[in-house]
Amino acid sequence: MTNKIPVGVLGGTGTVGQMYISRLENHPDFELSYIAASPSSAGKKYSDAVHGRWRIKEDIPSKAKNMIVSDANDIKSAVNNCSFVFSALEMGLIKQLEENYAKEGIIVVSNCSANRWTEDVPMLIPEINPGHIDIINNQRENHGFNKGFIVVKPNCSLQSYLTPIYALMKEGYDVSKIIVTTMQATSGAGYPGISSLDLIGNIIPNLSGEQEKAEKEPLKILGELKNKKIINYDKIKISAHCNRVPVIDGHTACVSLEFSSIPSKSINLEDIINIWENFRSVPQDLELYSAPKRPIIYTNESDRPQPVRDIYHENGMAVVVGGLEKENIFSYGIKFNGLSHNLIRGAAGGGILNAELLKAKGYLG
Amino acid sequence: MTNKIPVGVLGGTGTVGQMYISRLENHPDFELSYIAASPSSAGKKYSDAVHGRWRIKEDIPSKAKNMIVSDANDIKSAVNNCSFVFSALEMGLIKQLEENYAKEGIIVVSNCSANRWTEDVPMLIPEINPGHIDIINNQRENHGFNKGFIVVKPNCSLQSYLTPIYALMKEGYDVSKIIVTTMQATSGAGYPGISSLDLIGNIIPNLSGEQEKAEKEPLKILGELKNKKIINYDKIKISAHCNRVPVIDGHTACVSLEFSSIPSKSINLEDIINIWENFRSVPQDLELYSAPKRPIIYTNESDRPQPVRDIYHENGMAVVVGGLEKENIFSYGIKFNGLSHNLIRGAAGGGILNAELLKAKGYLG
Amino acid sequence: MTNKIPVGVLGGTGTVGQMYISRLENHPDFELSYIAASPSSAGKKYSDAVHGRWRIKEDIPSKAKNMIVSDANDIKSAVNNCSFVFSALEMGLIKQLEENYAKEGIIVVSNCSANRWTEDVPMLIPEINPGHIDIINNQRENHGFNKGFIVVKPNCSLQSYLTPIYALMKEGYDVSKIIVTTMQATSGAGYPGISSLDLIGNIIPNLSGEQEKAEKEPLKILGELKNKKIINYDKIKISAHCNRVPVIDGHTACVSLEFSSIPSKSINLEDIINIWENFRSVPQDLELYSAPKRPIIYTNESDRPQPVRDIYHENGMAVVVGGLEKENIFSYGIKFNGLSHNLIRGAAGGGILNAELLKAKGYLG
Amino acid sequence: MTNKIPVGVLGGTGTVGQMYISRLENHPDFELSYIAASPSSAGKKYSDAVHGRWRIKEDIPSKAKNMIVSDANDIKSAVNNCSFVFSALEMGLIKQLEENYAKEGIIVVSNCSANRWTEDVPMLIPEINPGHIDIINNQRENHGFNKGFIVVKPNCSLQSYLTPIYALMKEGYDVSKIIVTTMQATSGAGYPGISSLDLIGNIIPNLSGEQEKAEKEPLKILGELKNKKIINYDKIKISAHCNRVPVIDGHTACVSLEFSSIPSKSINLEDIINIWENFRSVPQDLELYSAPKRPIIYTNESDRPQPVRDIYHENGMAVVVGGLEKENIFSYGIKFNGLSHNLIRGAAGGGILNAELLKAKGYLG
Repeated sequence: MTNKIPVGVLGGTGTVGQMYISRLENHPDFELSYIAASPSSAGKKYSDAVHGRWRIKEDIPSKAKNMIVSDANDIKSAVNNCSFVFSALEMGLIKQLEENYAKEGIIVVSNCSANRWTEDVPMLIPEINPGHIDIINNQRENHGFNKGFIVVKPNCSLQSYLTPIYALMKEGYDVSKIIVTTMQATSGAGYPGISSLDLIGNIIPNLSGEQEKAEKEPLKILGELKNKKIINYDKIKISAHCNRVPVIDGHTACVSLEFSSIPSKSINLEDIINIWENFRSVPQDLELYSAPKRPIIYTNESDRPQPVRDIYHENGMAVVVGGLEKENIFSYGIKFNGLSHNLIRGAAGGGILNAELLKAKGYLG
Repeated sequence: MTNKIPVGVLGGTGTVGQMYISRLENHPDFELSYIAASPSSAGKKYSDAVHGRWRIKEDIPSKAKNMIVSDANDIKSAVNNCSFVFSALEMGLIKQLEENYAKEGIIVVSNCSANRWTEDVPMLIPEINPGHIDIINNQRENHGFNKGFIVVKPNCSLQSYLTPIYALMKEGYDVSKIIVTTMQATSGAGYPGISSLDLIGNIIPNLSGEQEKAEKEPLKILGELKNKKIINYDKIKISAHCNRVPVIDGHTACVSLEFSSIPSKSINLEDIINIWENFRSVPQDLELYSAPKRPIIYTNESDRPQPVRDIYHENGMAVVVGGLEKENIFSYGIKFNGLSHNLIRGAAGGGILNAELLKAKGYLG
Repeated sequence: MTNKIPVGVLGGTGTVGQMYISRLENHPDFELSYIAASPSSAGKKYSDAVHGRWRIKEDIPSKAKNMIVSDANDIKSAVNNCSFVFSALEMGLIKQLEENYAKEGIIVVSNCSANRWTEDVPMLIPEINPGHIDIINNQRENHGFNKGFIVVKPNCSLQSYLTPIYALMKEGYDVSKIIVTTMQATSGAGYPGISSLDLIGNIIPNLSGEQEKAEKEPLKILGELKNKKIINYDKIKISAHCNRVPVIDGHTACVSLEFSSIPSKSINLEDIINIWENFRSVPQDLELYSAPKRPIIYTNESDRPQPVRDIYHENGMAVVVGGLEKENIFSYGIKFNGLSHNLIRGAAGGGILNAELLKAKGYLG
Repeated sequence: MTNKIPVGVLGGTGTVGQMYISRLENHPDFELSYIAASPSSAGKKYSDAVHGRWRIKEDIPSKAKNMIVSDANDIKSAVNNCSFVFSALEMGLIKQLEENYAKEGIIVVSNCSANRWTEDVPMLIPEINPGHIDIINNQRENHGFNKGFIVVKPNCSLQSYLTPIYALMKEGYDVSKIIVTTMQATSGAGYPGISSLDLIGNIIPNLSGEQEKAEKEPLKILGELKNKKIINYDKIKISAHCNRVPVIDGHTACVSLEFSSIPSKSINLEDIINIWENFRSVPQDLELYSAPKRPIIYTNESDRPQPVRDIYHENGMAVVVGGLEKENIFSYGIKFNGLSHNLIRGAAGGGILNAELLKAKGYLG
């Protein structure tokens, strides 16, 4: 018999849901006990439901293959099988549905954007704002949740640069402006997502929803939990250009930063590389299972990081940074580029790390 | 008999040289009379020299096929065949070689970077700084050139955004900062250039030579010709992130601009689109053959311009702009993205337009 | 006033329908007068209906932009606007719907597979079986059609090799076996069609519907019209492997042929190239507007034809053939590879050529 | 101290050489002790020699990083460091050079084509012709080799289908004709190899050297060792069409087979699948370290195997087969498609398996 915590995956047939199911295999603390998806998949064996749609390099975990997919709208069914779910839903009305799960006592660790701006829902990157989980108690009060609650993770694209920026802020570099251009992989758009007719040899610019998320979500993540509220950080202005590029996995970001003040009198690139390479935070201190030992890796090779070569460091959970230079258009500033695996660090891996943090802090039972 | 001006192409076997030869076919004023390349191609029929290497969609012009390729080091041979050449050389020691051509009386319209920073050589985008050709007289004096002289065009990447920026400057928008991220096509790296192993499904960041060119060349182009010198413009600071992407033709740029002052009290996006759409300059006034009627085209479709769909407007000579928004991180600013055909507007087409300007101004004979 | 024949396009919003509308612009004999599509597009301006979905390099023809899209199920509406349509429908129940159009007096020139095996419907490649149109009279009798009738064109993939094979058959090379492997472009699967997640850096083998079509349709095309019936040709056996590859436009085929007998005692490759290069047929004799002057072009360059370089010969209507060798596994045989533009020769261009043949033969009014 | 056999890699800086060095890390019996390459790399630390050229997903093995690369022409230096080498040379005159190594007492396990047709050199696929190693004694006699000798592996492309064909032959299916079309990955052409300008969105047909190898090498592999000679198998005729496609790793083959006789009266597809799935041979019996447990894997999914999804089965050493159907153009025949990892099963992995076989048979010690 196992002491693992049973967990469900909502939206288990989609690209992110598949990654959850793949990475939960052999997890030391969580055990996949339930899969739900849209009504059209409900009632099918999981292997049938994803037949011809499984997009993960590793095989479908053998346990998952024979599980029967439930209807994600059928919360009772979930209640009977788990008290905690990862939500990777791609259907309508997710905001309300996730709340209903919480209302029925289920803890929801979500990838979806639906509840990211719900006031008392923390939007977590465990290396940056683990303390925001303390708002869970208020959330329960506000909504009359008993055991259930909701936490979310941010958009995949910003994971390629926000942690390196935060690492500098923590060391006294006050960031005032972020200008970022992303080159995002097609797997970030789900499956079937972007047509091959639109992406072979081509670039799609101005990804509108993505640009808004990239400009706003960091302000909540970097915010302060005060008087039972998360006060958005207001000292940074962010501008984002988001593009879809013909890359399968791995979001690249080109970043220019302005510092309003820095620890010393001039920018020293070696100092910054050291800060990045030595950055450790709560997930590392708690030795969470999915936590990368080195959350930020700096590469000295001039033409790196590259998606096909650099997304699997630390089991896909690292952010790889390169191309560091002074940003001469600002009094104090730097430019660099960052890369992370959008389905792992930016989605399922990040969600599982959130759950591991919750467990370590006593919120998971 | 023809009254066309005979012209040679140096480096005629490379990707840019091929584009010159293709676009000179049927030109009303210039006639290909000479092809030179590296010693390894010298002595071959042109069709043999480019066998298996011709990378232009149109066929090799029939006249060019049978021309015998000369050695680009053999200036005497050029002198006997033309008094004016396009230089698209990809060999070493180009700076001196181009000077030697000029010394022997040959007018050199160059694509190469070698002489871009030679003080008395104008770096031309005819829509922006046509007046810089007046430095040719000083150049002749300084170097003791009799009939010959050198003009150059800038790097291909900056053609996707510098003209739209200049169009605004001309209308009273004082630009103080440019932050640009380029996504550059592989044809810009020549042939064989980038290995398919490095570019299928991948991105190469931090193109080092490109970044420096993107940051410095605009300052000379926007400079003022005063006292027989081109004084670099010093009111703009530029930051560039340059990337190679799996696109065949077409350089995309994502641009954020800060204005130190603007004509009115707030940014009006409609005004800016009107300025772009109505921008006309000297090549249009002179009705130069290769001049695009609309040098800047704004697209309202939210996910455009895209390389495979938008590089052939105005016969490949337009810059297509989209995604215009206010840039909220600056008091006054905008963001947009631009696209141009790197081998046409950014290389051979731009070079031919330079020559047409020279002819119209009486410098070509 | 125009004397052109008004024509409608059914399925005008899809990839093939767009190509029809693009190529009908400036057609000397046909004039676009009607566009119909699925109910979801009905009632919209055409430019709105294809907004963000227009996938042709040339702009939407200005006349088409403002046309209102009708519901393809509403045959009365078609009757009021045209007596002849191109059908590029991608909806269900096409077989019956096309029959209903014919019943209402409309001539249907179809791209769809629905009626390819309807006994009295000719499946036309005008260079191969123009005489099959004589079955139209029987078709009218059989179905009680008055003015209307249906003709179809075959699957796009077989256009890359069937005409070169037919050209040899006509000269006395009796073909007994065809083994073909296709590498088909993504535009052949419609839009959105194949997900970029499945095609970037990948190949999809065993395209099941395609393989059947490639093995069977040639037998009808090569068949004989006898006693008011098309008798399938039964002396050739065909084996097809069909693959989807990361190419935008252009289907490539690798072909091995066995001849049961040949005109002379041994295979002479020069003879075969001459047969191909000199092949002319009814569309060329009739000087049909869309007929390629050279329907088959042989390339001597060893690594050609290639999709990005060779699909636009003869305005996209040629088949380009290369790599000819003796096929040593058969007593008499050859191997070669062929290429054609799947949306032009293989779809809309082929359909328009069918209509031009019908007009020349007096079937279009 | 280790009991592992020290081994050198000749051509260690190329794509295949890198794969050897990567896969030798942690090998239980072989230990990398020497790296040689062309004179331009000689004298450099290995990590410097491959800087910017390392194309393997895993990092450079730490032991290799600091090894000094020797000149592959300097055989004395090799003699001092190892008595056994893997040859992945990409320079000229390899045939003679490999012989010279053997003459100096070094055992050469080669990937190169240079000695594939040397009469007394066995061309090995250990699952097919392990017995051919017995010719080594004759080879030593013929050439006066003392301890050294040469064995080679065949071209990478035929590994995707020859083992499945052999598995059937072994069970009584007499194959008379093989018609194969390959779609080969770009990594098979080395680095830099194919230009991205030639391969993005494109196909290169008629790979001439490849076609000859695919048609001839199987005949030697399937040959019989008799009277100290390998007598080429002469009952099969092979036709190959070879294409380069925009895929990074993984060669796909579409195969049609004719059987001159079969074990029963009709083709039974289930029987064939069983033969493939149950195929085991000498490497499996000997439990060689790199031997795939299942050398042939049949996939029932209709659109598989696909390069991005199916090349890593059995650690990259399996051949994955799909799409099995009767081949109706022959009295008895089948069609199928096969896939293998060209750098692993088709190159370094296959070479290492050859060495493991030699060791097990007493030739390496």
